[in-house]
Amino acid sequence: MKITAVAGYKAVGRNMTGVTLGKETVAIDNGIRLDTLQMYDKSTDSLKKLDIDELIRMDIIPKVDRLKNIVAQIVSHGHLDHIGALPINRPRVPIIGNHYTIELCRREFRDGNYYSVDYREEFEISKNFSVEFIEVTHSIPYTSIVVLHTPEGDVVYVSDFRIDNYSRIAKTDYKRLREIGRENVKAMIVESTRCRENGKTPSEEVVRHKLKEILEFIDSGLIITTTFSTHIERIQSILDEVEAIGRTPIILGRSLLKNIDIAERFNLIDLPLDSRLYSTSKAISNVLRDIKNRDDYFLLVTGHQGELDSVLSKILDNRYSFRIEKGDSIIFCADPIPTPVNFASRYVLETKLKSLGARIFDRVHVSGHAAKEDHRKMLRMIRPDHVIPCHGGIDMRGQYAILAVEEGYTLNENVHLLMNGDNIEL
Amino acid sequence: MKITAVAGYKAVGRNMTGVTLGKETVAIDNGIRLDTLQMYDKSTDSLKKLDIDELIRMDIIPKVDRLKNIVAQIVSHGHLDHIGALPINRPRVPIIGNHYTIELCRREFRDGNYYSVDYREEFEISKNFSVEFIEVTHSIPYTSIVVLHTPEGDVVYVSDFRIDNYSRIAKTDYKRLREIGRENVKAMIVESTRCRENGKTPSEEVVRHKLKEILEFIDSGLIITTTFSTHIERIQSILDEVEAIGRTPIILGRSLLKNIDIAERFNLIDLPLDSRLYSTSKAISNVLRDIKNRDDYFLLVTGHQGELDSVLSKILDNRYSFRIEKGDSIIFCADPIPTPVNFASRYVLETKLKSLGARIFDRVHVSGHAAKEDHRKMLRMIRPDHVIPCHGGIDMRGQYAILAVEEGYTLNENVHLLMNGDNIEL
Amino acid sequence: MKITAVAGYKAVGRNMTGVTLGKETVAIDNGIRLDTLQMYDKSTDSLKKLDIDELIRMDIIPKVDRLKNIVAQIVSHGHLDHIGALPINRPRVPIIGNHYTIELCRREFRDGNYYSVDYREEFEISKNFSVEFIEVTHSIPYTSIVVLHTPEGDVVYVSDFRIDNYSRIAKTDYKRLREIGRENVKAMIVESTRCRENGKTPSEEVVRHKLKEILEFIDSGLIITTTFSTHIERIQSILDEVEAIGRTPIILGRSLLKNIDIAERFNLIDLPLDSRLYSTSKAISNVLRDIKNRDDYFLLVTGHQGELDSVLSKILDNRYSFRIEKGDSIIFCADPIPTPVNFASRYVLETKLKSLGARIFDRVHVSGHAAKEDHRKMLRMIRPDHVIPCHGGIDMRGQYAILAVEEGYTLNENVHLLMNGDNIEL
Amino acid sequence: MKITAVAGYKAVGRNMTGVTLGKETVAIDNGIRLDTLQMYDKSTDSLKKLDIDELIRMDIIPKVDRLKNIVAQIVSHGHLDHIGALPINRPRVPIIGNHYTIELCRREFRDGNYYSVDYREEFEISKNFSVEFIEVTHSIPYTSIVVLHTPEGDVVYVSDFRIDNYSRIAKTDYKRLREIGRENVKAMIVESTRCRENGKTPSEEVVRHKLKEILEFIDSGLIITTTFSTHIERIQSILDEVEAIGRTPIILGRSLLKNIDIAERFNLIDLPLDSRLYSTSKAISNVLRDIKNRDDYFLLVTGHQGELDSVLSKILDNRYSFRIEKGDSIIFCADPIPTPVNFASRYVLETKLKSLGARIFDRVHVSGHAAKEDHRKMLRMIRPDHVIPCHGGIDMRGQYAILAVEEGYTLNENVHLLMNGDNIEL
Repeated sequence: MKITAVAGYKAVGRNMTGVTLGKETVAIDNGIRLDTLQMYDKSTDSLKKLDIDELIRMDIIPKVDRLKNIVAQIVSHGHLDHIGALPINRPRVPIIGNHYTIELCRREFRDGNYYSVDYREEFEISKNFSVEFIEVTHSIPYTSIVVLHTPEGDVVYVSDFRIDNYSRIAKTDYKRLREIGRENVKAMIVESTRCRENGKTPSEEVVRHKLKEILEFIDSGLIITTTFSTHIERIQSILDEVEAIGRTPIILGRSLLKNIDIAERFNLIDLPLDSRLYSTSKAISNVLRDIKNRDDYFLLVTGHQGELDSVLSKILDNRYSFRIEKGDSIIFCADPIPTPVNFASRYVLETKLKSLGARIFDRVHVSGHAAKEDHRKMLRMIRPDHVIPCHGGIDMRGQYAILAVEEGYTLNENVHLLMNGDNIEL
Repeated sequence: MKITAVAGYKAVGRNMTGVTLGKETVAIDNGIRLDTLQMYDKSTDSLKKLDIDELIRMDIIPKVDRLKNIVAQIVSHGHLDHIGALPINRPRVPIIGNHYTIELCRREFRDGNYYSVDYREEFEISKNFSVEFIEVTHSIPYTSIVVLHTPEGDVVYVSDFRIDNYSRIAKTDYKRLREIGRENVKAMIVESTRCRENGKTPSEEVVRHKLKEILEFIDSGLIITTTFSTHIERIQSILDEVEAIGRTPIILGRSLLKNIDIAERFNLIDLPLDSRLYSTSKAISNVLRDIKNRDDYFLLVTGHQGELDSVLSKILDNRYSFRIEKGDSIIFCADPIPTPVNFASRYVLETKLKSLGARIFDRVHVSGHAAKEDHRKMLRMIRPDHVIPCHGGIDMRGQYAILAVEEGYTLNENVHLLMNGDNIEL
Repeated sequence: MKITAVAGYKAVGRNMTGVTLGKETVAIDNGIRLDTLQMYDKSTDSLKKLDIDELIRMDIIPKVDRLKNIVAQIVSHGHLDHIGALPINRPRVPIIGNHYTIELCRREFRDGNYYSVDYREEFEISKNFSVEFIEVTHSIPYTSIVVLHTPEGDVVYVSDFRIDNYSRIAKTDYKRLREIGRENVKAMIVESTRCRENGKTPSEEVVRHKLKEILEFIDSGLIITTTFSTHIERIQSILDEVEAIGRTPIILGRSLLKNIDIAERFNLIDLPLDSRLYSTSKAISNVLRDIKNRDDYFLLVTGHQGELDSVLSKILDNRYSFRIEKGDSIIFCADPIPTPVNFASRYVLETKLKSLGARIFDRVHVSGHAAKEDHRKMLRMIRPDHVIPCHGGIDMRGQYAILAVEEGYTLNENVHLLMNGDNIEL
Repeated sequence: MKITAVAGYKAVGRNMTGVTLGKETVAIDNGIRLDTLQMYDKSTDSLKKLDIDELIRMDIIPKVDRLKNIVAQIVSHGHLDHIGALPINRPRVPIIGNHYTIELCRREFRDGNYYSVDYREEFEISKNFSVEFIEVTHSIPYTSIVVLHTPEGDVVYVSDFRIDNYSRIAKTDYKRLREIGRENVKAMIVESTRCRENGKTPSEEVVRHKLKEILEFIDSGLIITTTFSTHIERIQSILDEVEAIGRTPIILGRSLLKNIDIAERFNLIDLPLDSRLYSTSKAISNVLRDIKNRDDYFLLVTGHQGELDSVLSKILDNRYSFRIEKGDSIIFCADPIPTPVNFASRYVLETKLKSLGARIFDRVHVSGHAAKEDHRKMLRMIRPDHVIPCHGGIDMRGQYAILAVEEGYTLNENVHLLMNGDNIEL
């Protein structure tokens, strides 16, 4: 068996790993790197027009031709750093994931040859490979741990995840994971973005409590909140707490509406009856202009990272006939993803908001990624023969290696640090 | 009326402010600065032997003789940065506080001439001054906002506080604060340590949830927790969650026992029936030696800041016949107070713990101090004629000034930045 | 006498201070704030079309109407945070500065009513005011300490400066400063951007040595350098060291050429004979395309902060038929001005450069601003009755206040922390 | 050939690497880790009394028994993180280094079986091994790149080094390194502490210029300087610049005197004629007491890291009849080695110094370690078959791996990241 580190082994983003057995290769994930994308100021649409080699050099997409004879493209969950390169790389092989993730892929790349699989089902790809998806918590619904069953043993792909036993939307399927762990697991490929952090990542319940407190605390003025559009559990937390204080929720922005729409179809979200949703500029402009008593409304908008086309950015650029006023409150239900560009974007947002007299509430967030002790628990459940940390720079993956060594593994023997383009035969 | 910035206006710590009317002066608080104390490696006991002028130069205690004709010493709450200089400065005038705080003072400085006052009582000091204590949340029980009633109007002293409507031990007495605010408030003296932080400080409930999750998450090994000895609400949170997982709580350390003892007398704490408490080295040694099944016990110990005489430091220095073992877990229910010395102490603790194979859980903490929006709410309730930020460097107090300007005040006109030793006539 | 803090007393940038005597006011400096300008993505040109009140709210320009009866506009030096608002505010009164600064102003705002004054000359503005400019070192030539002589004493305006006795282009006129200090100095208004830093700012000689070493160190490949276009002494350092290694210097970019052109007229710069300079896109494209042996050339280009229209950004965006190649070296002769936006811009530049295989040399820089001990020396020379720190947030200006207190001043008595819009009568 | 990562592959410090051929092993370096040593508050003397296994667990010394059949102990240079464990591990085999380093070893561990070798000499250890030392710059004299010649090719050990062509005391022997590079170099073991830093480390000349400026800048008061006691070139820089300003240099502290004494024997240092040196407490006390005109003297003392027994710490603790006074200046000719404990120590020193009114000048320092481009140059000269980064955490060594990959190497194929205790067969 050969594992190929296609991309995502140099920095966070543009994930892709290959698993080869005999002449067949399965590709897992096919993502873009969002911060480099931002640096080159490319929208996801404009990407399609660019030269692929150039996009690879820019560290935006994976170099797929590092893999030969791909027989299937598996997708673990619907974040763009895992599926965003599909419309560029346009795989012609079957694209396999669970229903929710496939629905998201379909919206990115219409022409795919899609197969949806339920949790705990096994899908046969070829004589060499069958695949199974196992439930786990992350910051988007229906994130899966991917298990590739092969004649030489299982390959377990754990990117991305967190452990949250109090999640109301997605639990960790401990039972199945422990069963897998008792079988023959040849290799585990595992994310490492927050392995440097002590302890465990706290539950979404912490966000709920912080938010509840803040909403009760704010006496007056309009309340505007922003979070990840794909984070349905977070959106539900927000809407539940808004309902409790009796303000009318207005949800604005194309990306939020798209994700809520999908979530509704999968019965994952329960909107308050009086929710109002708008996505076109004109509709947004109209609803904002109609806001009379600012104390009665609550806006949930796109734009927590200062994305140029987001509703929050457009409000701040006076592109609707509506202004944030002194005494309004902005709640950031998302921390910046830690890159210098995101820190700058948040700083710009805050500076603009403060110049208008807005009050800022931030850090109403918990990470979607496992911390060190979550990782230890996962490793102890799976107990693979080999561990290959992925999704991070050498510093992050090195920290995972240190954890694995604490748990009895040996670097270069059964823990492997790869670089983009490297292969390892197991 | 004259306000004197005796100390605490240069850096966090050694708080003391004077209020003078006619020939009479009231001193509020009389604290030490803990980080300078640490730098000179002085224990609270050894302090008493040192030259007072030298202790002032070292920025350890306030220079009391900046005040003349002191008629009373008021204490706002029992933290050492507010009462720790009493045994050195040894005021001979009445020392006035609420019962809990006075009890703590008495243990520091036996010979004081103490007067205890209930919340909402008014205590007459002289013709010029009477004092009232108002309930507020902080990280020690019975913290008070001090109101000095004078013929020229009230002086409201708000150091330290947070707003936590979910606190189970101490609420904010909004009603009385609003009444005061409707009266004639000449000046508010207010802490500024976290005024730079956006939003509001989260509730202790967040700590409870994080802790609950962690305790349920840890499968095996001894669990050791450490927190502030004076933080009775935190200790209660910890013990409640321990009870839920069924481990036997063992509480170790002189300072923890002293504070729990006082809290019990004031009916503020409810220990699990099977709790075991020890303070002498010998007793601690014995109980630790008797620990057989590490999965059954839970230790709450002193030493989160690496204090040399704490139980945690002594365990790590092999001063009991007991070692932390691979697989044990340490939960830090307190973040380091942000000074370089404390960051180093925590780093040393973690390095030592990791060398023994311990698993570390940290950031199970919320601050005891108000963030910017908590401050704004307090300012709007009190609406003083003048605001004097205290308890922080010029950077922290400057941030409070910016907040006050946002709320309609003008720097140097009715917001005042003072330095240690400065007076202002109002 | 009244001093008005028009702008620059909240954050670094958009400097303007007013000095009023009787019915006459003199305005000193009239700058923009560059980081807010960047945030709103405005070019200096597009600014002119915007509403002035909006530009004030955005913290981009000073609110000039805080001053009444302005009789003169003085400019201390030619940086945009000191003169950049001239084309927007368009003062009709005499604009007075030394010749070099006036030349720069004229290029920004053609229609001004300009008066140039030599160092040590005195220029009479009115019965109340005459002005004198004193030589000092900074990162642009002919920076001046401005002395306003008035019947009530002198006002000395010290923004911006550094002390560099080894500067080859601009020294500190100690003799005249000491003379002024022995006269009646009513007030000193002084920048505070780096007053937090210990010690003194090192000399430009340090940059020369670092650069010399690096140029000797690089064996092969094209060398590209970038620095501040206005920093003529730095440009001279660079060109001198390039001459020593025998590469042909090619200087590219409109802003560099403009500033070099002015500097040449003032005999401040001495270009190597083989220097080649180009500013139009077409010419730049041509010269870059003609580079055959990369080891023979040295490029000095605009763009150290990632400015969108700079030559470096355009090269990286493939807007010339020329690419940076593996083995080329980029030397940053300028540190990012410390704001989150600039840190992000540098990060983006470095990421793009690294993706092309370029080698990066950075920190070839010394600040143009005084550190704490430089400030102490200046304060001791001038010994004003009153000190008013400017050009910085409350944290920076507060640090200056602490320095002044060390030197015997008293906050609020003869050291004053003002906010934008505040006046003080002296 | 087998390379064993004995220690120094987890964090900076306690360096030891083994090279095995057939049945023979050569150990290179035998150091302690200084920051863990500090954490456990152990003096170098008290170490000898402690249990060796415990010292290993504490990450203070290397676990020597990871090597079998050691035939020689080589030492690369005289810093304690390379030779400090000799008195504990007490190797009985020949200890081989250049004369200067051996002299330093002898003072640490008297009973060694020492052999001194000149640069460019070759010393035969056994049939399998001969050793050669090559000159390179670092922050202690006579630092060597160690070349082990073996029948299977050379092993080049490059820890620690920097490239400084302007060093007045130790140059890089480019000629010999290039010759070695043209031979058969099987492996290079290379330090990685600053491989994350862009560019090249600047020359000591930069320190000289900064110091010269500062000394000319200070008008009055006593000047106190502190630096690394082993850094003879720095000490010479300091003394040269002091001579230029005409103050009498007084050099205080046991460790400074010891190192100056050795340097003098090797003709590496040239003290000003009027220098005065003292090491005993009594002598120091006397000379300090005799200082009358503070403007005439210059002190060079031990204690830049706040070491408890240093002269600077003792002065601050009033252990001599001498005090630092308002207006005295302290120049730190050494940055803190970047660990939390050292940052805290510096903060404590500065706080104490400021409380006495001292003026602080810091950052008069350049690192003794190579930055990324220095490393690239070395790698290109040596061109080994295999690269093994050492002396740093996985993050630092991972950065070296990235550099090696840029230079055409492949991770896990000919660049190897090892952990303490790992072996690799080449």
